[in-house]
Amino acid sequence: MRSGGKLNLAALASGNGSNLQALINECEAGRIDARIAIVISDNPDAKALQRARKHSIQAVALEREKFGLREEFDSALADAAEEAGADLVCLAGFMRLVSPAFLDRFNGWVVNIHPALLPSFPGLKAQKQALDYGVKISGCTVHFVDEGVDTGPIILQSAVEVLPDDTVETLSARILKQEHLLYPKAIQLIAKGAVKPGSGRKAISHY
Amino acid sequence: MRSGGKLNLAALASGNGSNLQALINECEAGRIDARIAIVISDNPDAKALQRARKHSIQAVALEREKFGLREEFDSALADAAEEAGADLVCLAGFMRLVSPAFLDRFNGWVVNIHPALLPSFPGLKAQKQALDYGVKISGCTVHFVDEGVDTGPIILQSAVEVLPDDTVETLSARILKQEHLLYPKAIQLIAKGAVKPGSGRKAISHY
Repeated sequence: MRSGGKLNLAALASGNGSNLQALINECEAGRIDARIAIVISDNPDAKALQRARKHSIQAVALEREKFGLREEFDSALADAAEEAGADLVCLAGFMRLVSPAFLDRFNGWVVNIHPALLPSFPGLKAQKQALDYGVKISGCTVHFVDEGVDTGPIILQSAVEVLPDDTVETLSARILKQEHLLYPKAIQLIAKGAVKPGSGRKAISHY
Repeated sequence: MRSGGKLNLAALASGNGSNLQALINECEAGRIDARIAIVISDNPDAKALQRARKHSIQAVALEREKFGLREEFDSALADAAEEAGADLVCLAGFMRLVSPAFLDRFNGWVVNIHPALLPSFPGLKAQKQALDYGVKISGCTVHFVDEGVDTGPIILQSAVEVLPDDTVETLSARILKQEHLLYPKAIQLIAKGAVKPGSGRKAISHY
């Protein structure tokens, strides 16, 4: 799937895009062998799109309500990523589930970052779920995306302590710091060929 | 529930009892304000019973098949612990589920150590579950026991890295090392009154 020496990334983001920024920074610094070819958002006002433009990265807004069926929307997303030459799709705070048809278009080369130590606390509000459960350790997980909700093969994880007086905000901030380190690290493992999506439960690792 | 200056523990173990040994050592060294009043096993050949005798701790075997209903067996367990003056029951590799009636007898003052970062991988063979799932971080959890399988309020957790070439044996050994540190630490939090069982989802902590 590689084109040239670097892995071409398409990033999908709905919001602030701080994980996107971490990827942009590490790509620009040459610490990961990848470049972000396009940033796509379902929200035309997403700060993620501004970040892309600031770094001269193609920025595309695709609004869900301008498409009929979900399949048509997902097709448009996949078309945009493919036309930009994406080898790997990185979900970075993208607030929609991507369909199996979308995943098939990229043959499993789709990754996500989740703010919990999966399989604990999949889905929305993972940090609140962790606090409500009362765990003492949470963290973040980079994984390949499959048809389930945060169930795909794990690439890397990082543990984060939960403190007695944590709120959703303080815990989320502590986890986010680790996300900004973990996501580029995982992308670099993929870029150098050390990890790829397998057909089974686990990613294929050679590191 | 405290009798005298130290917390009286009843330990329930079915096997080797290496976590029991860690508790014995820390009690004897005076690093936790507790003493083990009795070790009870459902297996008369358990090494845990030998460990107890070696340290002049009352050692009692109660074989399940010598009792009729599960309730009668659990009653005998609770009687033995109560007669030894136990303030807290510590499950240490006890291979049976204790009944709600048993938990009621101790008003929730029953703790367990589990070789995974709960709520991930409850139940048997937690280390194998973790390897099969492909997590990169697992660990261990000390929790109060409730009616569910490893679902009770969490007291402490410790994270352990899963290495690419780990087997069940190597991962279990790495987690066990952390268990030996974590269990005494959790008992000491209870002994000094910093943590107690709450009525809700979470333990009550003041540390």
